[in-house]
Amino acid sequence: MVGDAIGSKLVSLGHKVMMGSRTATNEKAVAWTSRNGNLASNGTFADAAAFGEIIFNCTTGQVSLEALQLAGRENLQGKILVDVANPLDFSKGMPPSLTICNTDSLGEVIQRQFTDVKVVKALNTMNCQLMVNPGLLNDPGNVFICGNDASAKAEVENLLQSFAWERIIDLGDISAARGTEQILPIWIRLMGKLGTPMFNFSIVQ
Amino acid sequence: MVGDAIGSKLVSLGHKVMMGSRTATNEKAVAWTSRNGNLASNGTFADAAAFGEIIFNCTTGQVSLEALQLAGRENLQGKILVDVANPLDFSKGMPPSLTICNTDSLGEVIQRQFTDVKVVKALNTMNCQLMVNPGLLNDPGNVFICGNDASAKAEVENLLQSFAWERIIDLGDISAARGTEQILPIWIRLMGKLGTPMFNFSIVQ
Repeated sequence: MVGDAIGSKLVSLGHKVMMGSRTATNEKAVAWTSRNGNLASNGTFADAAAFGEIIFNCTTGQVSLEALQLAGRENLQGKILVDVANPLDFSKGMPPSLTICNTDSLGEVIQRQFTDVKVVKALNTMNCQLMVNPGLLNDPGNVFICGNDASAKAEVENLLQSFAWERIIDLGDISAARGTEQILPIWIRLMGKLGTPMFNFSIVQ
Repeated sequence: MVGDAIGSKLVSLGHKVMMGSRTATNEKAVAWTSRNGNLASNGTFADAAAFGEIIFNCTTGQVSLEALQLAGRENLQGKILVDVANPLDFSKGMPPSLTICNTDSLGEVIQRQFTDVKVVKALNTMNCQLMVNPGLLNDPGNVFICGNDASAKAEVENLLQSFAWERIIDLGDISAARGTEQILPIWIRLMGKLGTPMFNFSIVQ
């Protein structure tokens, strides 16, 4: 769902997008390609990583490292990796717990395991429809980014602005992913309370 | 600081308040009493717990359980305990980690250890000046509460309204404290980024 939303948005903005999956013929990826026209294609994780200038990790957090290993270190090297994933564990029922938290984060683990990749954590604190269409809310609120590479963050900020995001907060280095990932427990509670995933956090002063 | 802010606000609203400390003659508590007039007094944690109809836990999270044990089970029994504390561990430097998180929370630990007390987690997601004066922000944002006892939460909501809080979100039972306590890591990052603790979370739709 997250990859579909972000991929479709990028295509609508004129970018060429390859959707990566475990197999080159993943049914949902093929359907996504056929819905999105000439700029869209699909392939394996490795195909997509080799194809892209900027990579989006839209996998579920528990399999992100495996997916990135399948994508291939050589295909990711030197590139920006926008990490949208959250390390949620639903295996013990609701509410989910986090598989990584407190003194570490998924964003940091990915950065440590892929030292040649410029990891930018972004967009992981909201529903995927809102990620690519902040105007769905009367007050869109904030989107948070963090990462160790300033120029990579600047490129991601440009992309987010092209998604119509105006209030982007750069929280600093990738260790700030601890903060944005640990916001998920209250996000999930709020979704239950409000009865909808269509809300966001706004920082007010 | 938190106890001072909340105690002073309660006195200003006409409540009798006793500030509890380890000793009955704690210097800051004595100074607080002398600043706050006839409705203010101070004593030991046990004195304060015996005195109060509603108890506020404004201790630092790492010593909250010890302070509550000093307050005395018999003095707390049947009462509402508003838990404002966060289980932050600054001992390993900045940023702090959480001593309890993910599958548990300080609010839950207190509720389990004091089963006869009606724990309501509230106000722990913001600076203490803002807790008692939401009008300090142009947009005050939200205050979150949670707890297992509906009538206790209703009483706390009334108190929060008397502090001028309008947008109160009841997140459900005390396990929602996992969410509000785990929001602290991003709060601390935001404080560094914004250069001020005078901000809040607003849930926008």
